[in-house]
Amino acid sequence: MRISELSRRSGVPVATIKYYRREGLLPEGRALNPTAVEYGEEHIQRLRLIRSLIQLGGLSVARTREVLEAVDRPLDAFETLGVVHHALPVPSADKNGKGGQEDSVPDIAADEATSGEGATARVETLIESMGWQISDESPHRPALAESLAALARLGAEYTTDDLLPYARLATSTADLDFEQFDGIDDRIALAERAVVLTVLFEPVVRLLRRLAQEDANHRRHHRRACRRE
Amino acid sequence: MRISELSRRSGVPVATIKYYRREGLLPEGRALNPTAVEYGEEHIQRLRLIRSLIQLGGLSVARTREVLEAVDRPLDAFETLGVVHHALPVPSADKNGKGGQEDSVPDIAADEATSGEGATARVETLIESMGWQISDESPHRPALAESLAALARLGAEYTTDDLLPYARLATSTADLDFEQFDGIDDRIALAERAVVLTVLFEPVVRLLRRLAQEDANHRRHHRRACRRE
Repeated sequence: MRISELSRRSGVPVATIKYYRREGLLPEGRALNPTAVEYGEEHIQRLRLIRSLIQLGGLSVARTREVLEAVDRPLDAFETLGVVHHALPVPSADKNGKGGQEDSVPDIAADEATSGEGATARVETLIESMGWQISDESPHRPALAESLAALARLGAEYTTDDLLPYARLATSTADLDFEQFDGIDDRIALAERAVVLTVLFEPVVRLLRRLAQEDANHRRHHRRACRRE
Repeated sequence: MRISELSRRSGVPVATIKYYRREGLLPEGRALNPTAVEYGEEHIQRLRLIRSLIQLGGLSVARTREVLEAVDRPLDAFETLGVVHHALPVPSADKNGKGGQEDSVPDIAADEATSGEGATARVETLIESMGWQISDESPHRPALAESLAALARLGAEYTTDDLLPYARLATSTADLDFEQFDGIDDRIALAERAVVLTVLFEPVVRLLRRLAQEDANHRRHHRRACRRE
Protein backbone atom coordinates (compact mmCIF):
# COMPACT_ATOMS: atom_id res chain seq x y z
CA MET A 1 0.00 0.00 0.00
CA ARG A 2 1.03 3.61 -0.52
CA ILE A 3 1.66 6.08 2.32
CA SER A 4 -1.84 7.56 1.92
CA GLU A 5 -3.45 4.18 2.53
CA LEU A 6 -1.04 3.45 5.39
CA SER A 7 -2.19 6.74 6.92
CA ARG A 8 -5.86 5.95 6.39
CA ARG A 9 -5.64 2.42 7.79
CA SER A 10 -3.42 3.28 10.76
CA GLY A 11 -5.14 6.57 11.55
CA VAL A 12 -1.75 8.28 11.70
CA PRO A 13 -1.39 11.45 9.54
CA VAL A 14 1.06 11.29 6.61
CA ALA A 15 3.21 14.04 8.17
CA THR A 16 3.54 12.05 11.37
CA ILE A 17 4.43 8.86 9.47
CA LYS A 18 7.20 10.78 7.66
CA TYR A 19 8.40 12.18 10.98
CA TYR A 20 8.60 8.70 12.51
CA ARG A 21 10.51 7.50 9.44
CA ARG A 22 13.00 10.38 9.66
CA GLU A 23 13.49 9.61 13.36
CA GLY A 24 14.23 5.99 12.52
CA LEU A 25 11.22 4.63 14.41
CA LEU A 26 9.50 3.23 11.32
CA PRO A 27 11.47 1.08 8.84
CA GLU A 28 11.62 2.21 5.22
CA GLY A 29 9.06 0.80 2.82
CA ARG A 30 9.99 -1.04 -0.38
CA ALA A 31 10.87 1.45 -3.17
CA LEU A 32 8.74 0.70 -6.25
CA ASN A 33 10.23 3.56 -8.25
CA PRO A 34 11.96 6.82 -7.35
CA THR A 35 8.70 8.44 -6.22
CA ALA A 36 6.59 5.58 -4.89
CA VAL A 37 7.20 3.47 -1.78
CA GLU A 38 5.22 0.36 -0.86
CA TYR A 39 4.28 -0.37 2.79
CA GLY A 40 3.07 -3.62 4.30
CA GLU A 41 1.03 -4.91 7.23
CA GLU A 42 4.16 -4.88 9.41
CA HIS A 43 4.22 -1.09 9.07
CA ILE A 44 0.67 -0.82 10.38
CA GLN A 45 1.54 -3.00 13.36
CA ARG A 46 4.70 -1.01 14.01
CA LEU A 47 2.84 2.31 13.81
CA ARG A 48 0.37 1.05 16.39
CA LEU A 49 3.20 0.18 18.76
CA ILE A 50 4.95 3.55 18.23
CA ARG A 51 1.68 5.32 18.91
CA SER A 52 1.00 3.43 22.09
CA LEU A 53 4.54 3.99 23.38
CA ILE A 54 4.54 7.74 22.65
CA GLN A 55 0.94 8.73 23.13
CA LEU A 56 -0.18 6.35 25.83
CA GLY A 57 3.12 5.46 27.46
CA GLY A 58 4.31 9.07 27.37
CA LEU A 59 7.74 7.95 26.11
CA SER A 60 10.10 10.34 24.37
CA VAL A 61 11.15 9.60 20.78
CA ALA A 62 14.60 8.58 22.06
CA ARG A 63 13.09 6.20 24.62
CA THR A 64 10.71 4.82 22.00
CA ARG A 65 13.67 4.09 19.71
CA GLU A 66 15.35 2.10 22.50
CA VAL A 67 12.24 0.04 23.13
CA LEU A 68 11.76 -0.65 19.41
CA GLU A 69 15.38 -1.79 19.14
CA ALA A 70 14.76 -4.19 22.03
CA VAL A 71 11.58 -5.47 20.38
CA ASP A 72 13.55 -6.07 17.16
CA ARG A 73 16.29 -8.03 18.91
CA PRO A 74 15.62 -11.76 19.13
CA LEU A 75 14.83 -11.64 22.84
CA ASP A 76 12.27 -13.90 24.41
CA ALA A 77 8.96 -12.62 25.75
CA PHE A 78 10.38 -12.32 29.26
CA GLU A 79 13.18 -10.01 28.18
CA THR A 80 10.98 -7.96 25.85
CA LEU A 81 8.54 -7.33 28.69
CA GLY A 82 11.42 -6.39 30.98
CA VAL A 83 12.72 -3.75 28.56
CA VAL A 84 9.28 -2.22 27.96
CA HIS A 85 8.48 -2.28 31.66
CA HIS A 86 11.63 -0.42 32.66
CA ALA A 87 11.24 2.16 29.87
CA LEU A 88 7.77 3.31 30.92
CA PRO A 89 7.36 6.45 33.04
CA VAL A 90 7.83 5.74 36.72
CA PRO A 91 5.03 6.76 39.11
CA SER A 92 6.18 9.42 41.56
CA ALA A 93 4.67 11.51 44.32
CA ASP A 94 5.83 14.58 42.46
CA LYS A 95 4.08 13.96 39.18
CA ASN A 96 0.94 13.18 41.09
CA GLY A 97 0.70 16.49 42.86
CA LYS A 98 0.67 18.55 39.69
CA GLY A 99 -2.61 17.13 38.49
CA GLY A 100 -5.33 19.41 39.68
CA GLN A 101 -3.53 22.72 40.02
CA GLU A 102 -5.64 25.37 38.33
CA ASP A 103 -4.39 28.74 39.49
CA SER A 104 -0.84 29.68 40.27
CA VAL A 105 0.21 29.65 43.88
CA PRO A 106 3.34 31.28 45.31
CA ASP A 107 6.00 28.63 45.66
CA ILE A 108 6.74 27.30 49.09
CA ALA A 109 10.39 26.60 49.82
CA ALA A 110 11.27 23.04 50.76
CA ASP A 111 11.91 23.60 54.40
CA GLU A 112 12.44 20.18 55.88
CA ALA A 113 15.74 18.40 55.62
CA THR A 114 15.55 15.24 53.52
CA SER A 115 14.46 12.81 56.17
CA GLY A 116 13.20 9.29 55.63
CA GLU A 117 16.61 7.86 56.30
CA GLY A 118 16.77 4.18 55.70
CA ALA A 119 14.04 4.32 53.04
CA THR A 120 16.36 2.44 50.68
CA ALA A 121 17.09 -0.14 53.37
CA ARG A 122 13.35 -0.57 53.97
CA VAL A 123 12.76 -1.19 50.26
CA GLU A 124 15.52 -3.82 50.22
CA THR A 125 14.11 -5.54 53.31
CA LEU A 126 10.65 -5.51 51.75
CA ILE A 127 11.88 -7.03 48.47
CA GLU A 128 13.79 -9.67 50.43
CA SER A 129 10.85 -10.49 52.72
CA MET A 130 8.60 -10.90 49.71
CA GLY A 131 11.20 -13.04 47.93
CA TRP A 132 10.77 -10.76 44.91
CA GLN A 133 13.30 -11.01 42.10
CA ILE A 134 14.03 -7.44 41.04
CA SER A 135 16.95 -6.45 38.80
CA ASP A 136 19.53 -3.98 40.08
CA GLU A 137 18.62 -1.62 37.23
CA SER A 138 14.94 -1.44 38.12
CA PRO A 139 13.82 2.21 38.19
CA HIS A 140 11.04 1.24 40.61
CA ARG A 141 13.38 0.39 43.46
CA PRO A 142 14.78 3.96 43.95
CA ALA A 143 11.37 5.47 43.10
CA LEU A 144 9.76 3.55 45.96
CA ALA A 145 12.53 4.65 48.34
CA GLU A 146 11.94 8.27 47.28
CA SER A 147 8.18 7.99 47.82
CA LEU A 148 8.73 6.55 51.29
CA ALA A 149 11.22 9.33 52.10
CA ALA A 150 8.66 11.94 50.95
CA LEU A 151 6.03 10.40 53.22
CA ALA A 152 8.47 10.33 56.13
CA ARG A 153 9.18 14.06 55.65
CA LEU A 154 5.45 14.61 56.19
CA GLY A 155 5.50 12.60 59.37
CA ALA A 156 3.95 9.51 57.77
CA GLU A 157 6.61 6.89 58.41
CA TYR A 158 5.85 3.44 56.95
CA THR A 159 7.76 0.45 58.27
CA THR A 160 8.45 -2.70 56.27
CA ASP A 161 5.71 -4.39 58.33
CA ASP A 162 3.20 -1.68 57.33
CA LEU A 163 4.06 -2.24 53.68
CA LEU A 164 4.08 -6.05 53.62
CA PRO A 165 0.27 -6.49 53.40
CA TYR A 166 0.20 -3.96 50.53
CA ALA A 167 3.03 -5.85 48.81
CA ARG A 168 1.10 -9.13 49.13
CA LEU A 169 -1.95 -7.54 47.49
CA ALA A 170 0.35 -6.16 44.76
CA THR A 171 1.55 -9.71 44.05
CA SER A 172 -2.04 -10.86 43.61
CA THR A 173 -2.71 -7.92 41.28
CA ALA A 174 0.42 -8.70 39.25
CA ASP A 175 -0.69 -12.31 38.87
CA LEU A 176 -4.01 -11.09 37.47
CA ASP A 177 -2.06 -8.76 35.16
CA PHE A 178 0.02 -11.60 33.77
CA GLU A 179 -3.01 -13.70 32.95
CA GLN A 180 -3.68 -11.01 30.35
CA PHE A 181 -0.47 -11.99 28.51
CA ASP A 182 -1.52 -15.61 28.15
CA GLY A 183 -1.59 -16.73 24.55
CA ILE A 184 0.25 -13.69 23.15
CA ASP A 185 3.43 -14.91 21.45
CA ASP A 186 4.13 -12.15 18.97
CA ARG A 187 6.76 -9.78 20.36
CA ILE A 188 5.20 -6.59 19.00
CA ALA A 189 1.75 -7.55 20.27
CA LEU A 190 3.31 -8.38 23.63
CA ALA A 191 5.07 -5.01 23.85
CA GLU A 192 1.82 -3.24 22.96
CA ARG A 193 -0.05 -5.17 25.62
CA ALA A 194 2.61 -4.32 28.21
CA VAL A 195 2.09 -0.61 27.53
CA VAL A 196 -1.67 -0.95 27.76
CA LEU A 197 -1.48 -2.99 30.94
CA THR A 198 1.13 -0.97 32.74
CA VAL A 199 0.13 2.54 31.74
CA LEU A 200 -3.49 2.49 30.63
CA PHE A 201 -4.78 -0.09 33.04
CA GLU A 202 -3.07 1.70 35.94
CA PRO A 203 -5.78 4.39 36.27
CA VAL A 204 -8.38 1.62 36.38
CA VAL A 205 -6.58 0.04 39.34
CA ARG A 206 -6.27 3.45 41.02
CA LEU A 207 -9.94 4.31 40.44
CA LEU A 208 -11.06 0.95 41.80
CA ARG A 209 -9.05 1.77 44.93
CA ARG A 210 -10.78 5.16 45.20
CA LEU A 211 -14.23 3.60 44.83
CA ALA A 212 -13.35 0.90 47.35
CA GLN A 213 -12.15 3.64 49.73
CA GLU A 214 -15.48 5.43 49.48
CA ASP A 215 -17.27 2.16 50.19
CA ALA A 216 -14.95 1.41 53.12
CA ASN A 217 -15.76 4.85 54.54
CA HIS A 218 -19.50 4.06 54.26
CA ARG A 219 -19.11 0.64 55.85
CA ARG A 220 -17.13 2.04 58.80
CA HIS A 221 -19.65 4.84 59.26
CA HIS A 222 -22.60 2.44 59.33
CA ARG A 223 -20.90 0.05 61.69
CA ARG A 224 -20.31 2.95 64.07
CA ALA A 225 -23.90 4.22 63.63
CA CYS A 226 -25.27 0.75 64.40
CA ARG A 227 -23.17 0.44 67.53
CA ARG A 228 -24.67 3.73 68.77
CA GLU A 229 -28.25 2.47 68.43
CA MET B 1 3.22 34.38 68.11
CA ARG B 2 3.91 36.96 65.42
CA ILE B 3 3.82 36.25 61.68
CA SER B 4 7.61 35.82 61.55
CA GLU B 5 7.49 33.06 64.14
CA LEU B 6 4.46 31.47 62.44
CA SER B 7 6.53 31.43 59.25
CA ARG B 8 9.56 29.93 60.98
CA ARG B 9 7.62 27.24 62.80
CA SER B 10 5.39 26.28 59.88
CA GLY B 11 8.13 26.56 57.26
CA VAL B 12 5.79 28.67 55.09
CA PRO B 13 7.25 32.02 53.87
CA VAL B 14 5.62 35.21 55.22
CA ALA B 15 4.53 36.24 51.71
CA THR B 16 2.75 32.91 51.24
CA ILE B 17 1.04 33.20 54.63
CA LYS B 18 -0.22 36.66 53.65
CA TYR B 19 -1.42 35.29 50.31
CA TYR B 20 -3.37 32.49 52.02
CA ARG B 21 -4.91 35.06 54.37
CA ARG B 22 -5.97 37.30 51.47
CA GLU B 23 -7.50 34.28 49.72
CA GLY B 24 -9.48 33.46 52.84
CA LEU B 25 -7.76 30.12 53.41
CA LEU B 26 -6.17 31.10 56.72
CA PRO B 27 -8.31 32.77 59.42
CA GLU B 28 -7.22 36.17 60.71
CA GLY B 29 -5.06 36.28 63.81
CA ARG B 30 -5.97 38.26 66.95
CA ALA B 31 -5.16 41.98 66.52
CA LEU B 32 -2.94 43.12 69.40
CA ASN B 33 -2.69 46.68 68.09
CA PRO B 34 -3.07 48.28 64.65
CA THR B 35 0.26 46.87 63.45
CA ALA B 36 0.66 43.58 65.33
CA VAL B 37 -1.35 40.39 64.94
CA GLU B 38 -1.08 37.36 67.19
CA TYR B 39 -1.31 33.81 65.78
CA GLY B 40 -1.88 30.54 67.62
CA GLU B 41 -1.21 26.82 67.31
CA GLU B 42 -4.42 26.44 65.28
CA HIS B 43 -2.82 28.58 62.55
CA ILE B 44 0.16 26.24 62.32
CA GLN B 45 -2.13 23.24 62.02
CA ARG B 46 -4.24 25.01 59.41
CA LEU B 47 -1.17 26.02 57.39
CA ARG B 48 -0.03 22.39 57.34
CA LEU B 49 -3.40 21.30 55.96
CA ILE B 50 -3.44 24.07 53.31
CA ARG B 51 0.04 23.07 52.25
CA SER B 52 -0.81 19.41 51.95
CA LEU B 53 -3.97 20.15 49.95
CA ILE B 54 -2.26 22.53 47.53
CA GLN B 55 1.25 21.16 47.25
CA LEU B 56 0.66 17.47 47.70
CA GLY B 57 -2.97 17.13 46.68
CA GLY B 58 -2.49 19.45 43.72
CA LEU B 59 -5.73 21.30 44.59
CA SER B 60 -6.45 24.78 43.29
CA VAL B 61 -6.95 27.61 45.77
CA ALA B 62 -10.71 27.55 45.04
CA ARG B 63 -10.89 23.80 45.67
CA THR B 64 -8.80 24.16 48.82
CA ARG B 65 -11.24 26.80 50.10
CA GLU B 66 -14.15 24.38 49.58
CA VAL B 67 -12.38 21.59 51.46
CA LEU B 68 -11.46 23.93 54.34
CA GLU B 69 -15.08 25.08 54.59
CA ALA B 70 -16.15 21.44 54.83
CA VAL B 71 -13.52 20.76 57.49
CA ASP B 72 -14.82 23.76 59.46
CA ARG B 73 -18.44 22.62 59.32
CA PRO B 74 -19.44 20.36 62.19
CA LEU B 75 -19.49 17.22 60.04
CA ASP B 76 -18.49 13.86 61.36
CA ALA B 77 -15.30 12.10 60.28
CA PHE B 78 -17.19 10.13 57.64
CA GLU B 79 -18.46 13.26 55.91
CA THR B 80 -15.16 15.12 56.23
CA LEU B 81 -13.35 12.22 54.57
CA GLY B 82 -15.98 12.12 51.84
CA VAL B 83 -15.51 15.81 50.99
CA VAL B 84 -11.70 15.58 50.92
CA HIS B 85 -11.82 12.36 48.92
CA HIS B 86 -14.02 13.82 46.20
CA ALA B 87 -12.02 17.05 45.99
CA LEU B 88 -8.71 15.36 45.23
CA PRO B 89 -7.49 15.08 41.62
CA VAL B 90 -8.98 12.09 39.86
CA PRO B 91 -6.60 9.58 38.22
CA SER B 92 -7.03 9.46 34.45
CA ALA B 93 -5.39 7.73 31.51
CA ASP B 94 -4.74 11.13 30.01
CA LYS B 95 -2.75 12.61 32.84
CA ASN B 96 -0.72 9.46 32.96
CA GLY B 97 0.47 9.62 29.41
CA LYS B 98 1.98 13.07 29.73
CA GLY B 99 4.55 11.99 32.28
CA GLY B 100 7.67 11.00 30.41
CA GLN B 101 7.38 13.10 27.26
CA GLU B 102 10.72 14.78 26.68
CA ASP B 103 10.77 16.03 23.12
CA SER B 104 7.84 17.38 21.18
CA VAL B 105 6.10 15.06 18.80
CA PRO B 106 3.69 16.07 16.05
CA ASP B 107 0.19 15.60 17.31
CA ILE B 108 -1.78 12.62 16.15
CA ALA B 109 -5.44 13.23 15.43
CA ALA B 110 -7.89 11.18 17.44
CA ASP B 111 -9.02 8.92 14.64
CA GLU B 112 -11.24 6.34 16.25
CA ALA B 113 -14.84 7.04 17.06
CA THR B 114 -15.47 7.04 20.79
CA SER B 115 -16.12 3.36 21.29
CA GLY B 116 -16.35 1.51 24.58
CA GLU B 117 -20.11 1.83 24.54
CA GLY B 118 -21.61 0.51 27.68
CA ALA B 119 -18.57 1.46 29.76
CA THR B 120 -20.90 3.35 32.12
CA ALA B 121 -23.19 0.32 32.32
CA ARG B 122 -20.21 -1.92 33.10
CA VAL B 123 -19.15 0.40 35.94
CA GLU B 124 -22.68 0.30 37.39
CA THR B 125 -22.80 -3.50 37.15
CA LEU B 126 -19.41 -3.73 38.82
CA ILE B 127 -20.42 -1.44 41.70
CA GLU B 128 -23.64 -3.42 42.14
CA SER B 129 -21.88 -6.80 42.02
CA MET B 130 -19.43 -5.63 44.64
CA GLY B 131 -22.21 -4.22 46.77
CA TRP B 132 -20.24 -0.97 46.93
CA GLN B 133 -21.97 2.15 48.28
CA ILE B 134 -20.90 5.00 46.01
CA SER B 135 -22.57 8.40 45.97
CA ASP B 136 -24.08 9.70 42.73
CA GLU B 137 -21.70 12.67 42.83
CA SER B 138 -18.56 10.52 42.97
CA PRO B 139 -16.07 11.77 40.36
CA HIS B 140 -14.53 8.28 40.26
CA ARG B 141 -17.56 6.65 38.68
CA PRO B 142 -17.42 8.59 35.34
CA ALA B 143 -13.60 8.55 35.44
CA LEU B 144 -13.60 4.75 35.54
CA ALA B 145 -16.09 4.60 32.66
CA GLU B 146 -13.83 6.94 30.65
CA SER B 147 -10.75 4.81 31.36
CA LEU B 148 -12.58 1.68 30.26
CA ALA B 149 -13.79 3.43 27.10
CA ALA B 150 -10.20 4.52 26.34
CA LEU B 151 -9.02 0.92 26.71
CA ALA B 152 -11.83 -0.33 24.48
CA ARG B 153 -10.81 2.15 21.77
CA LEU B 154 -7.40 0.43 21.83
CA GLY B 155 -8.96 -2.97 21.44
CA ALA B 156 -8.55 -3.88 25.12
CA GLU B 157 -12.12 -4.51 26.19
CA TYR B 158 -12.57 -5.40 29.85
CA THR B 159 -15.78 -7.07 30.95
CA THR B 160 -17.26 -6.76 34.42
CA ASP B 161 -16.00 -10.31 35.07
CA ASP B 162 -12.44 -9.27 34.14
CA LEU B 163 -12.66 -6.38 36.58
CA LEU B 164 -14.23 -8.18 39.53
CA PRO B 165 -11.02 -9.82 40.83
CA TYR B 166 -9.30 -6.42 40.63
CA ALA B 167 -12.20 -4.82 42.51
CA ARG B 168 -11.91 -7.46 45.25
CA LEU B 169 -8.22 -6.71 45.68
CA ALA B 170 -9.08 -2.99 45.77
CA THR B 171 -11.47 -3.65 48.66
CA SER B 172 -8.68 -5.37 50.58
CA THR B 173 -6.36 -2.44 49.87
CA ALA B 174 -9.01 0.06 51.02
CA ASP B 175 -9.46 -1.87 54.26
CA LEU B 176 -5.72 -1.60 54.89
CA ASP B 177 -5.98 2.12 54.07
CA PHE B 178 -8.69 2.70 56.62
CA GLU B 179 -6.73 1.03 59.39
CA GLN B 180 -4.46 4.06 59.04
CA PHE B 181 -7.30 6.34 60.20
CA ASP B 182 -7.83 4.42 63.42
CA GLY B 183 -7.48 6.61 66.45
CA ILE B 184 -7.53 9.93 64.58
CA ASP B 185 -10.48 11.96 65.82
CA ASP B 186 -9.43 15.52 65.08
CA ARG B 187 -11.05 16.69 61.83
CA ILE B 188 -8.04 18.64 60.56
CA ALA B 189 -5.66 15.77 61.28
CA LEU B 190 -8.08 13.43 59.54
CA ALA B 191 -8.28 15.62 56.45
CA GLU B 192 -4.49 15.81 56.33
CA ARG B 193 -4.20 12.06 56.62
CA ALA B 194 -6.75 11.58 53.83
CA VAL B 195 -4.60 13.69 51.49
CA VAL B 196 -1.45 11.78 52.43
CA LEU B 197 -3.15 8.43 52.05
CA THR B 198 -5.02 9.11 48.83
CA VAL B 199 -2.46 11.17 46.97
CA LEU B 200 0.96 10.47 48.45
CA PHE B 201 0.51 6.84 49.26
CA GLU B 202 -0.88 6.17 45.77
CA PRO B 203 2.56 6.11 44.10
CA VAL B 204 3.66 3.59 46.73
CA VAL B 205 0.79 1.29 45.75
CA ARG B 206 1.57 1.78 42.05
CA LEU B 207 5.29 1.12 42.55
CA LEU B 208 4.59 -2.03 44.55
CA ARG B 209 2.47 -3.21 41.60
CA ARG B 210 5.37 -2.49 39.20
CA LEU B 211 7.83 -4.40 41.39
CA ALA B 212 5.37 -7.28 41.74
CA GLN B 213 4.94 -7.29 37.95
CA GLU B 214 8.70 -7.62 37.44
CA ASP B 215 8.75 -10.49 39.91
CA ALA B 216 5.74 -12.14 38.22
CA ASN B 217 7.59 -11.92 34.89
CA HIS B 218 10.62 -13.65 36.47
CA ARG B 219 8.51 -16.35 38.06
CA ARG B 220 6.69 -17.10 34.78
CA HIS B 221 9.98 -17.16 32.89
CA HIS B 222 11.56 -19.63 35.31
CA ARG B 223 8.53 -21.87 35.34
CA ARG B 224 8.72 -22.03 31.56
CA ALA B 225 12.51 -22.58 31.62
CA CYS B 226 12.09 -25.45 34.11
CA ARG B 227 9.41 -27.11 31.99
CA ARG B 228 11.82 -27.09 29.04
CA GLU B 229 14.51 -28.97 30.99
